[in-house]
Amino acid sequence: MKMQPRTLSGFMELLPKQQVLMEKIMQTLRETYSLYGFTPLDTPLIEASEVLLAKGGGETEKQIYRFTKGDSDLSLRFDLTVPLAKYVALHYGELAFPFRRFQIGKVYRGERAQRGRFREFYQADIDVIGDGKLDISNEAEIPAIIYQVFSRLGLRKFQIRVNNRKILNGFYAMLGLQEKAGDIMRTVDKLEKIGADKVRKLLTGELGITDGQAVDILKFIAIKGGNQEVLATLDAYRGKHELFDTGVEELAAVVRYLAAFGMPEENFKVDLTIARGLDYYTGTVYETLMLEHPEIGSICSGGRYDNLAEYYTDKVLPGVGISIGLTRLFYVLHEQKMLNEQLNAAPADVLLIPMTDDLSPAVELATKFRSSGVRVQLYAEQKKFKAKMSYADKIGAPFVVFLGEDEIRDGVVACKDMQSGEQTKMGFEETLARVRKGLDAMGQGKVILG
Amino acid sequence: MKMQPRTLSGFMELLPKQQVLMEKIMQTLRETYSLYGFTPLDTPLIEASEVLLAKGGGETEKQIYRFTKGDSDLSLRFDLTVPLAKYVALHYGELAFPFRRFQIGKVYRGERAQRGRFREFYQADIDVIGDGKLDISNEAEIPAIIYQVFSRLGLRKFQIRVNNRKILNGFYAMLGLQEKAGDIMRTVDKLEKIGADKVRKLLTGELGITDGQAVDILKFIAIKGGNQEVLATLDAYRGKHELFDTGVEELAAVVRYLAAFGMPEENFKVDLTIARGLDYYTGTVYETLMLEHPEIGSICSGGRYDNLAEYYTDKVLPGVGISIGLTRLFYVLHEQKMLNEQLNAAPADVLLIPMTDDLSPAVELATKFRSSGVRVQLYAEQKKFKAKMSYADKIGAPFVVFLGEDEIRDGVVACKDMQSGEQTKMGFEETLARVRKGLDAMGQGKVILG
Repeated sequence: MKMQPRTLSGFMELLPKQQVLMEKIMQTLRETYSLYGFTPLDTPLIEASEVLLAKGGGETEKQIYRFTKGDSDLSLRFDLTVPLAKYVALHYGELAFPFRRFQIGKVYRGERAQRGRFREFYQADIDVIGDGKLDISNEAEIPAIIYQVFSRLGLRKFQIRVNNRKILNGFYAMLGLQEKAGDIMRTVDKLEKIGADKVRKLLTGELGITDGQAVDILKFIAIKGGNQEVLATLDAYRGKHELFDTGVEELAAVVRYLAAFGMPEENFKVDLTIARGLDYYTGTVYETLMLEHPEIGSICSGGRYDNLAEYYTDKVLPGVGISIGLTRLFYVLHEQKMLNEQLNAAPADVLLIPMTDDLSPAVELATKFRSSGVRVQLYAEQKKFKAKMSYADKIGAPFVVFLGEDEIRDGVVACKDMQSGEQTKMGFEETLARVRKGLDAMGQGKVILG
Repeated sequence: MKMQPRTLSGFMELLPKQQVLMEKIMQTLRETYSLYGFTPLDTPLIEASEVLLAKGGGETEKQIYRFTKGDSDLSLRFDLTVPLAKYVALHYGELAFPFRRFQIGKVYRGERAQRGRFREFYQADIDVIGDGKLDISNEAEIPAIIYQVFSRLGLRKFQIRVNNRKILNGFYAMLGLQEKAGDIMRTVDKLEKIGADKVRKLLTGELGITDGQAVDILKFIAIKGGNQEVLATLDAYRGKHELFDTGVEELAAVVRYLAAFGMPEENFKVDLTIARGLDYYTGTVYETLMLEHPEIGSICSGGRYDNLAEYYTDKVLPGVGISIGLTRLFYVLHEQKMLNEQLNAAPADVLLIPMTDDLSPAVELATKFRSSGVRVQLYAEQKKFKAKMSYADKIGAPFVVFLGEDEIRDGVVACKDMQSGEQTKMGFEETLARVRKGLDAMGQGKVILG
């Protein structure tokens, strides 16, 4: 009896060609984050439960993969932020602040299994951590970097929505509702789903808010328009609450800096309904929508926090960060047929088929190609010619090179372009040029079809 | 009360500069494996226990991180071979064979904690899987690729030791000891540690082997010399047992192909004491020693197997693979001071310090640098000049660029080389050329100091 092989549900396992596209995305993230001065980090997937859960549970606690090994109570990380807090607190003396790091790694949440939901998924995070304080310009640079990342990947119709929690908290405090601010935000967050009437009913019902207050709230979160327009409308609320005023000033500064950071107007928008569920955000918050697929929700979220590692250290470490839910994004792009299947996703650019028993000339030729950056698979299996060509087809090799006695004697290379079917017999340099030209043409497109 | 932050023992967590070196190593692996036509794979860290442990336990089973979540009995992968077997069996119909994949990923073994032993560690594997059969040349290409990998990394004094299990099994069968072959190999494996006398005593004692047989065994495994010499000595044993003869033929073929694959004589050696503990190796086996640090043991091991996925499928899938224990290798290189600390491990090549309130000109300048591949961190914190320079020092930025009103007006860039201390004021293109030259010089060396 054989064991039926299977992959756990909620765990993404890609076929080779898709995996290559995923790798291209990750490579673009690594390169772009590096260009902006972020250093790569890698932290364990397992942490001591008491360390990982120092902050205490909340909704995520039930989802955590927690187990014992020997005497140790262990947990798999459920995000990259808590491990970052631990890292920064633990290695504080050896880091320079602002500390800018990126991390692309798997995290684990035992969510209810459903289509498009993952229990193991990649997050790709960038964070800037200050020691004591951190300039507000960072809160504009972060979404500007994300704009770069998505643009380089080829994504077009996306918008980074920006808000400031101080504005929300300040506004609810103005209404004397600071105690209920969290509940109100969670309710208001349902606006798009359930409509204004139901939100009003929830506010005045469950939350015990007066009709007048509910009207004020709905009017406030309905503030819309261009970024300058929204800022102007917010101006009219100023002078009543300090926190609110600070929030508006910060938001205005972020909008101003965003322009300086080269963010196009159409790719960011002030949106007063953005709150982010997590408590630790204290200022600017971000969500990113694919404009043609708002139903997917935010593909990249984050914000400003005042105290990253307060559970581990007395040091005050404010920061700002943002996270791309990479596995889910990849899944969505695949579902929406937005992945560029035309890109060269073959394991090799050239399948080299030696036609002689002695492999040395073929290895020499392969080495010359490889020195020029061309990926070559030597195919030395004992198969019929037809089977060899069908293999080249199956792996999607753009070129097949044959090397027999004749070619070796004449100092030429036989090379077939698998797309056009055209076959040439030329010297190595000419063949290399032809291969390169073909590969360049194939590599033109971006990974995501905007 | 704060929770004391800590990282679990047996889990490697690197500081930023070390992490950069680790990333450079991984990038070299990815690039080299890709040049040889291997496709990247990524499989879940968690598998259903019954799937992962289909083969049944053995020594590793006690070390496995196994736990339940809801109704599921789950385990963390302890190598990358079993997940590959599952993958190939599961996706058989969608793969082209030979299937060549590389995978760099973390695996988990709850070993007794001790210095230099890790419970979470990276393995970097390549495997070639055939469908039904697989040409023997693959068994020579695999170590030739490893030679390339280590050479590109800068490692010099290493040697890949090669043997063939058929020779060992055939030889013990000749002596009528086929039933005890596994036990004998495990005993003989201790030769270097405990010496020939003790091995003989163990053989004749515990294992119940006659004195004559023990003499034959010790004589056999003492066969030494150059590769051709060893092969010649083995020739004298031929004609007595078919499996043995096949093994010698395979070994001779691998040695012949290794030369064709460009492997220098000094970097590989036939060594009849190499057996590899794992049962599933059936032919060629490899170990890799750092010649000046034999005490470390093998840094890269593998071999040929006849049936990768026999627990999951009736398909016969022979293959050959090799695995670098990356975390342990990195640890050893660090301990031995063999990591090149002179390489540029800063998060940014240029720390750009704007001297104006308006950040736009600085962002524009940073964008120009980045378009040319130079990694730039914009430093906009409100700090004294001295603090800014000390930050540049601390992150190890090779260059600092200042942009004030004067420079903007004159269309120049002030740039300080942090190593030489030399400061220039030149146009962007000249500055870029200078920065590039400096970075090129810093990037000359390899990651490993041979």
